Amino acid sequence: MTSGTSRGRRPGAPDTRGHILAAARERFANAGYDRTTIRGVAAEAEVDPALVYHYFGAKEDLFLEAMELPVDPRELGPELFGGGMENAGERLARTFLGIWEDPNSRAPMLALLRGGLTTEAGQSLIHKGLVGMLLTAAQEFLGNDDGLLRAELAMSQMIGVAFGRYVIGVEPLASADPEDLVAWLAPTLQRYLTGDPDDLPRV
Amino acid sequence: MTSGTSRGRRPGAPDTRGHILAAARERFANAGYDRTTIRGVAAEAEVDPALVYHYFGAKEDLFLEAMELPVDPRELGPELFGGGMENAGERLARTFLGIWEDPNSRAPMLALLRGGLTTEAGQSLIHKGLVGMLLTAAQEFLGNDDGLLRAELAMSQMIGVAFGRYVIGVEPLASADPEDLVAWLAPTLQRYLTGDPDDLPRV
Repeated sequence: MTSGTSRGRRPGAPDTRGHILAAARERFANAGYDRTTIRGVAAEAEVDPALVYHYFGAKEDLFLEAMELPVDPRELGPELFGGGMENAGERLARTFLGIWEDPNSRAPMLALLRGGLTTEAGQSLIHKGLVGMLLTAAQEFLGNDDGLLRAELAMSQMIGVAFGRYVIGVEPLASADPEDLVAWLAPTLQRYLTGDPDDLPRV
Repeated sequence: MTSGTSRGRRPGAPDTRGHILAAARERFANAGYDRTTIRGVAAEAEVDPALVYHYFGAKEDLFLEAMELPVDPRELGPELFGGGMENAGERLARTFLGIWEDPNSRAPMLALLRGGLTTEAGQSLIHKGLVGMLLTAAQEFLGNDDGLLRAELAMSQMIGVAFGRYVIGVEPLASADPEDLVAWLAPTLQRYLTGDPDDLPRV
């Protein structure tokens, strides 16, 4: 499996997987999504590229593992929208808040959000990595016309709530009951996903 | 006006104002909003506190000048909501996008947003400084019951759009026509400001 041990490459020892993940984290953080390659990660970890493929498959999978993302964004589209768009806004709000309410899954999301604001590489990780996968998964269900914009509007609402509630911690948003937030957010998301711009809420 | 020149304090020379602003920027960035005082800024600038009051008035004013914020958040409440809440969501969306569309006013907003995600002091500047003033100004018009939560929900939507459109630059959101965005955002904001959670958009 390892073809180049003569050049100091490590064999598939028990900690090789973790070693590759650490190298991947470093590469992604420094180079962003597009400019990180399986080959580059292998070089950083001093292992054969085949070993990286063996443990992690495609770059997308390596990214998800390295970032310790709590969900696979590619599965969210089918999960949320596969059974039809009725109440999709509510499912999206509840799933999203569920991820952020759990401190274990909140930490990697916060790290990504922070990186996205502060470095070009971090921006690329969100844009081409996380958001790219989410949008590709969502667009299949939202159509080609304005499906991307709809998905991005929904995402913008959720990222803003994450910023106010979990990053800045502004009250009363920070300690509002998640179910109250679902009640506020679900109609917003539902309109972005399936409504018309001219649909006015009944106020 | 200067009482302590013996301790090396500077007189009101032509560049004293800029000198105080630079000191204020440093203090705010390192100590956050609550822990920055007029007295501390005066010490940092090596001038008498009375001189800081003379040039800038209260700490809030010094903060707004030092951060080079494009608008006075305390005036936004009366401006947007003073004439009644009808179409307030649309006015809010248009004002907000106007600030971010102008590269001159975008830069300080981006700096604040970045700081808010990366340092505790920066978090305090957004939370206690910018957002605190915005919320106080808005709450007067939104009432005491759930007015704060309503204002924060509206703010979350706008911050999320700023993140997606101006920070990450995800397409097609990044190059969407501002008026199209106003059409999408205004009903969301209007519902947060004046609607009920149970008000469903007509979709």
